[in-house]
Amino acid sequence: MPRILAITGGVGGAKLALGLSKILSADEVLFAVNTGDDFTHFGLHISPDIDSLTYALAEQNNTELGWGRAGETWQFIEAMQQLGGDTWFRLGDKDLALHMRRTELLQAGANLTAATAQITTALGIQHRVAPMSDDAVRTLVHTDLGTLAFQHYFVREQCQPAVSGFEFSGMQDAQLNPVIAEFLNTCDGVVICPSNPYVSVDPLLGLPGMRQALTRLPLIAVSPIVGGIALKGPAAKMMRELNVPATASAVAAHYDGLLSGFVLDNTDAAHADQFNVPVLVTNTIMDSLQSKIALAQACVSFLQELD
Amino acid sequence: MPRILAITGGVGGAKLALGLSKILSADEVLFAVNTGDDFTHFGLHISPDIDSLTYALAEQNNTELGWGRAGETWQFIEAMQQLGGDTWFRLGDKDLALHMRRTELLQAGANLTAATAQITTALGIQHRVAPMSDDAVRTLVHTDLGTLAFQHYFVREQCQPAVSGFEFSGMQDAQLNPVIAEFLNTCDGVVICPSNPYVSVDPLLGLPGMRQALTRLPLIAVSPIVGGIALKGPAAKMMRELNVPATASAVAAHYDGLLSGFVLDNTDAAHADQFNVPVLVTNTIMDSLQSKIALAQACVSFLQELD
Repeated sequence: MPRILAITGGVGGAKLALGLSKILSADEVLFAVNTGDDFTHFGLHISPDIDSLTYALAEQNNTELGWGRAGETWQFIEAMQQLGGDTWFRLGDKDLALHMRRTELLQAGANLTAATAQITTALGIQHRVAPMSDDAVRTLVHTDLGTLAFQHYFVREQCQPAVSGFEFSGMQDAQLNPVIAEFLNTCDGVVICPSNPYVSVDPLLGLPGMRQALTRLPLIAVSPIVGGIALKGPAAKMMRELNVPATASAVAAHYDGLLSGFVLDNTDAAHADQFNVPVLVTNTIMDSLQSKIALAQACVSFLQELD
Repeated sequence: MPRILAITGGVGGAKLALGLSKILSADEVLFAVNTGDDFTHFGLHISPDIDSLTYALAEQNNTELGWGRAGETWQFIEAMQQLGGDTWFRLGDKDLALHMRRTELLQAGANLTAATAQITTALGIQHRVAPMSDDAVRTLVHTDLGTLAFQHYFVREQCQPAVSGFEFSGMQDAQLNPVIAEFLNTCDGVVICPSNPYVSVDPLLGLPGMRQALTRLPLIAVSPIVGGIALKGPAAKMMRELNVPATASAVAAHYDGLLSGFVLDNTDAAHADQFNVPVLVTNTIMDSLQSKIALAQACVSFLQELD
C-alpha cells in the first residue's frame, strides 16, 4: 500500500481517519492534526482535535453526542456548576482524565508529540497521531462580537457570531512537527480529510514549509460540504458569512494550487464538471464503519490513479 | 452562647465541627483548619482537611467510605488508570470539581481563605472555615523510608512506614490567618476537636503567635484516642512509633501548658484521675448527628464551667 499523510481536524475528519487506519498499517499512514483549537482551561492543556481523533481511533468516541468519549458521565461538571465555576466547556469525567494526563506529561517536560504518543499508546492505538506542531499556534476568529479565541467562538458562543476572518497566532514562529516533515519526504500522497478548510486545515497549510512540501506530492481533499451544508460543524455558515458559496467547488477552490484531485459526494454529482482537477464522485457520508473504510479505500485508489 | 474557636483537622475533627455548627451560629464559632496536609497533584491545590470539613458542614460527606464526598463516582480515576497516570490519590469525579475550582480561584488571585469562603458559600455553608494560614506550611513525615510529604505517607504509603518525627516546612515564615488571629482576640474559648495531635493540630499550634494567643483563653481538647486506639487515622500507631503510650492522657500531656480541661470517652473513665486538669467524661464516639450535637453541647458547657 502507499504511504499517506492524512491531514485532519475534528470529528468529521476523524471518521475518515478511522477508515484509513483500518486499511493502512501504522507505517503507511500518519495523521497530521490541527492544534489551532488547543486551549488552556482550568490549567489543563486541551487539544480538541487530537482528542477527537484519539477517541475515534480507539473506537471510544461518543456516537450519541457526536463528540467526546463513549460512556461519558458528567459528575464533575455538575459539581463544578454547583461551585460556581465555568461550565461552558462540557468536560466529561473520563475526558478530563485525558486532559489532565496530557497536562501532567507536558509539565514533566514532554512535548505535545510525545505526550500524544504516550496517550494514544495507552489507549491501544498503534497508528501515529502527530500534532501539526509542538509550538503553540492559536486560531482566533474575527467576528461581529470581536476577536474570539477559537473555543470561545465554537463552544461558548456556539458559532453564533458572524465570521469575518481568521488569524493564527504564533504560526510564523511555529515549526512544522518534524515527524510530519520527515514523513512528507518519503510518503506517496496526501489526503485532506473532510474537515473545516478555514479552521481545521488552514492552520496546517500555513505552517512554515508545509505548503511547499505538499506541492511536491499528489494531494486529494474530501469535501466537508455536501449538498450545500456541512455534515458537521460551522463550515457552511462560515463560508456564507465570508461571501463564499457554500459548495464543494468553493472548497476545492480554497485548496487551489495544492489539489491533484477532489472527492465529492454523490449528492453533488451534477456539479462534477465544475472542477479543474480530476474528481471522484462517491459516498462521503460516513455513518458506519463500513462506509468509513469504503471511503478510505476509494481515496487511496484515487490517489494511486493520480500518481 | 459563647464564641468559640474550634481547631480541627480531618474527618474525626469534622464530626465535632458539624455538631458545633448545629448549636452555634456563624458568629459564635470559627473553624480553624490544618493546611499542613495540602499538596499539589495534577497541578491542583488539594486541601484535604478543609475539604473534609467542607463536606461535613455541607452534610455532603461520604459516610460509606469515611472520606470524600457523598454519592461520589470514579470515572475520572478509572480513565486515568487506563492512561497510565498516577492513581494513588483517589480523586472522585465530584471531588475533583472542588479542587479545580479552588485552584482556579487561587490562580485568579484569591488567597486560600477567600477561595475557601467562596466554595463553602456555594455549598450552602453559613459557618466560616478558616485555613490556618494563607501561606504554605507543609507537613513532612520522617519515617524509616525517609522523609515523606504528608499525603505520600498518609495515602500513597497508607501510613505503613514507621514514624520518627515531623517537620513543618514553611511554618516559621507563615502568618497565622488574620481571621483566626482577630477571632482569638474576642472569643471566649477554644475547642481542639478530636484530631491527630501531631499532624492535624501541631501545625496550627506552631504558627507564630498561635500558642501565646491560646494560653490567654480557656481551652479544652477532645481525645482522639479512645481505649488505646485512634477512632480514625494513624494517631495511635504514630504514638507507639514515637515511644509515647497510645492513651488519652498522653494526648493531654502533648497539649501541656495549653489545656484548661480535657474530654475523655466513657471507655477511658477509669483513667480520669491521671489528668492534672479538669476532665469531662462523656461519649465521644460520634456515629450519628445526635451524638455529634451532644458532644458539642457537652464541650461548650464544659468550657463555660471552666471559664
